[in-house]
Amino acid sequence: MEAGPPGSSRPTELGPCLSGQRGADQAASASLQSAARAQLGRHPLAVAAVLPAGGCGERMGVPTPKQFCPILERPLISYTLQALERVFWIKDIVVVVTGENMEVMKSIIQKYQHKRISLVEAGVTRHRSIFNGLKALAEDQLNCKLSKPEIVIIHDAVRPFVEEDILLKVVTAAKEHGAAGAIRPLVSTVISPSADGCLDHSLERARHRASEMPQAFLFDVIYEAYQQCSDYDLEFGTECLQLALKYCCTKAKLVEGSPDLWKVTYKRDLYAAESIVKERISQEVCVITDTKEDNKHVSHLLEEVLKSELNVMTSDLQETQKLLSILEESHLSILYPVVVVSVHFLDFKLVPPSQKMENLMQIREFAKEVKKRNIWLCGLLISYPQDEQKLQESLRQGAIIIASLIKERNSGLVGQLLIA
Amino acid sequence: MEAGPPGSSRPTELGPCLSGQRGADQAASASLQSAARAQLGRHPLAVAAVLPAGGCGERMGVPTPKQFCPILERPLISYTLQALERVFWIKDIVVVVTGENMEVMKSIIQKYQHKRISLVEAGVTRHRSIFNGLKALAEDQLNCKLSKPEIVIIHDAVRPFVEEDILLKVVTAAKEHGAAGAIRPLVSTVISPSADGCLDHSLERARHRASEMPQAFLFDVIYEAYQQCSDYDLEFGTECLQLALKYCCTKAKLVEGSPDLWKVTYKRDLYAAESIVKERISQEVCVITDTKEDNKHVSHLLEEVLKSELNVMTSDLQETQKLLSILEESHLSILYPVVVVSVHFLDFKLVPPSQKMENLMQIREFAKEVKKRNIWLCGLLISYPQDEQKLQESLRQGAIIIASLIKERNSGLVGQLLIA
Repeated sequence: MEAGPPGSSRPTELGPCLSGQRGADQAASASLQSAARAQLGRHPLAVAAVLPAGGCGERMGVPTPKQFCPILERPLISYTLQALERVFWIKDIVVVVTGENMEVMKSIIQKYQHKRISLVEAGVTRHRSIFNGLKALAEDQLNCKLSKPEIVIIHDAVRPFVEEDILLKVVTAAKEHGAAGAIRPLVSTVISPSADGCLDHSLERARHRASEMPQAFLFDVIYEAYQQCSDYDLEFGTECLQLALKYCCTKAKLVEGSPDLWKVTYKRDLYAAESIVKERISQEVCVITDTKEDNKHVSHLLEEVLKSELNVMTSDLQETQKLLSILEESHLSILYPVVVVSVHFLDFKLVPPSQKMENLMQIREFAKEVKKRNIWLCGLLISYPQDEQKLQESLRQGAIIIASLIKERNSGLVGQLLIA
Repeated sequence: MEAGPPGSSRPTELGPCLSGQRGADQAASASLQSAARAQLGRHPLAVAAVLPAGGCGERMGVPTPKQFCPILERPLISYTLQALERVFWIKDIVVVVTGENMEVMKSIIQKYQHKRISLVEAGVTRHRSIFNGLKALAEDQLNCKLSKPEIVIIHDAVRPFVEEDILLKVVTAAKEHGAAGAIRPLVSTVISPSADGCLDHSLERARHRASEMPQAFLFDVIYEAYQQCSDYDLEFGTECLQLALKYCCTKAKLVEGSPDLWKVTYKRDLYAAESIVKERISQEVCVITDTKEDNKHVSHLLEEVLKSELNVMTSDLQETQKLLSILEESHLSILYPVVVVSVHFLDFKLVPPSQKMENLMQIREFAKEVKKRNIWLCGLLISYPQDEQKLQESLRQGAIIIASLIKERNSGLVGQLLIA
């Protein structure tokens, strides 16, 4: 997909892994840290981010502002905060929200344990909101934990898939040029209508670009621009790069961004965002095999068939409980629903499935319990015939079911016992 | 959502309904027919459509050209053809494909029973492909079933959600103005870079629009434009409206389109398209209750809980088989996977589920059989306790599972017996 090869551009925290997600995050950060320092100069820059989130999402056609619409039950803005937060060199993140959404925003920050966030009240337009965010960073007040940064990033709350890579590029370019912003090729031709609603002329596509986010500025440049800005610009303007050009003669450097920077605007974009999140969190494999029983061979075969799917296997309920405790302690399930598939093997010819099923029915009650902690448990009974070819067939079927449960992440199926 | 209220803008054929989809289509067409005739003048116009589908989809980042990427296992272009086909007043649909994809395209037309399609070989650029399509319509050859239309619609193969409404609008406007095209507000600000990759200037968003599809032209206007067109335009141009302006002095009328006209460009757009299709085909309800047993009351209660979901219920396997035969004969499953949930009620206190389960296990084999005809069968056992409150709870759970199966349309779960 357009995100590039896995690993390179995928956010490190998006792949849940039992063995310490924080560890993986830190390792990835460490290697980027040195690159960042090398590029940003000998001393690390003071960088802050302003995130205007005061929009009402009228284009979405739903009553909830789009930044608060849920993606896998978590508000969109929380994904964007997570993406900024994991970039260690962004010291402060100023989120600008309307007064009426202030409490909602506070509860999101608390629930998903976001750090380094300050809340500022929005203005009536996007530019006024950004200006409020900048003011909060500019004013070195005694009671204020914020301090003026050298560089400020401006990003959108509704672009959740921003990568450290592009943030670093715009910050580095802003240090050199005073301003920088991500751009993308145009998808449609842009035209200029005449007053009577007819085509006046069309623009040459190759000569124009779509201006996207993130953008970055020397703080003094963009703050100066906003201070000098006309009321008309504050009311009707949309482009921060244009303000830096108009009021500070600063020509922004344009940086090619990835397609993932797109802005969640319509309901279809929410669908796309949810599918991307599901795809990303379904990449990592974790197979836990019970070594006590002699179905180690068949577990291994299942692993082979599963290949690139996440799968957690245990053999009895006691083991499952131990695993679930580990999962809960890892805090993984705060950010994403964690799917656990408890896999059992059974020769249906020797033991009719209904016989074992009675025991396994308790999985339903147990699943209901752990669902409260965002762990989605399902059972899977895989037929284990003597015939090697039939075994392969039931393993393949089992792998398809596991992949379905993980990729679709369908809460309606929690507690079910499926049969392959 | 942005598609507007159900019924008004949703394609009539997208909601599967047992009682004659074709009937509903015809009824909807009939009312639009009179409107179309009224607007198009006393005599119906000869209208044809050209659908360039020669692109290689490089931006998608997948080897399959995007128009052939599957949405619920059916190629994207088949959805677009379906959308054009159901507009009765479009006499011919000329699809322009590359030589290497000619056979693929033929098999798609055959498999999904598309009508009124002619295939023409693509040129090396989009404009050359459209020109080839127009030539096929212009040349009144003896062996050719095509004849020159008065109006030609040009649409994209990768805009599957085009509605009759907008097609009618552009055709009507093209008859009056010579050319017309759908437009949308810009989502991002458009900028013009300088030679050194910096911002030269940004365009005022309110004064520009994105040019989308469909477009329509008096055939003689656009054919004349293409005949006079320079090689440079044929190689590097993108905008048909611009050609009509440049070579025929025809100023196209611009018509505001819906967000659903967007072009499937990136992989995320495929995700969005699949979600939209799933949502649309999950709107209609069909509940079949077995009147022989005395669980009519509880079936009715389930209907109440299900509210707006599609649900097909029968009470024994024989009934299910009858229903499935009807479904197969209706040809519904040619275009979409049809989900059938066979619901059974059982007081788990009186009869342990394992006992009945043994009988119901046969559903798996049967499901495997009908899956070949694109009918996805699942079983659902709903607990039927005496306690009214507990009954409500298990019905609610059952409704959630049914909704999941229908909305997610997850082929991995075919043949499963779920428990609520």
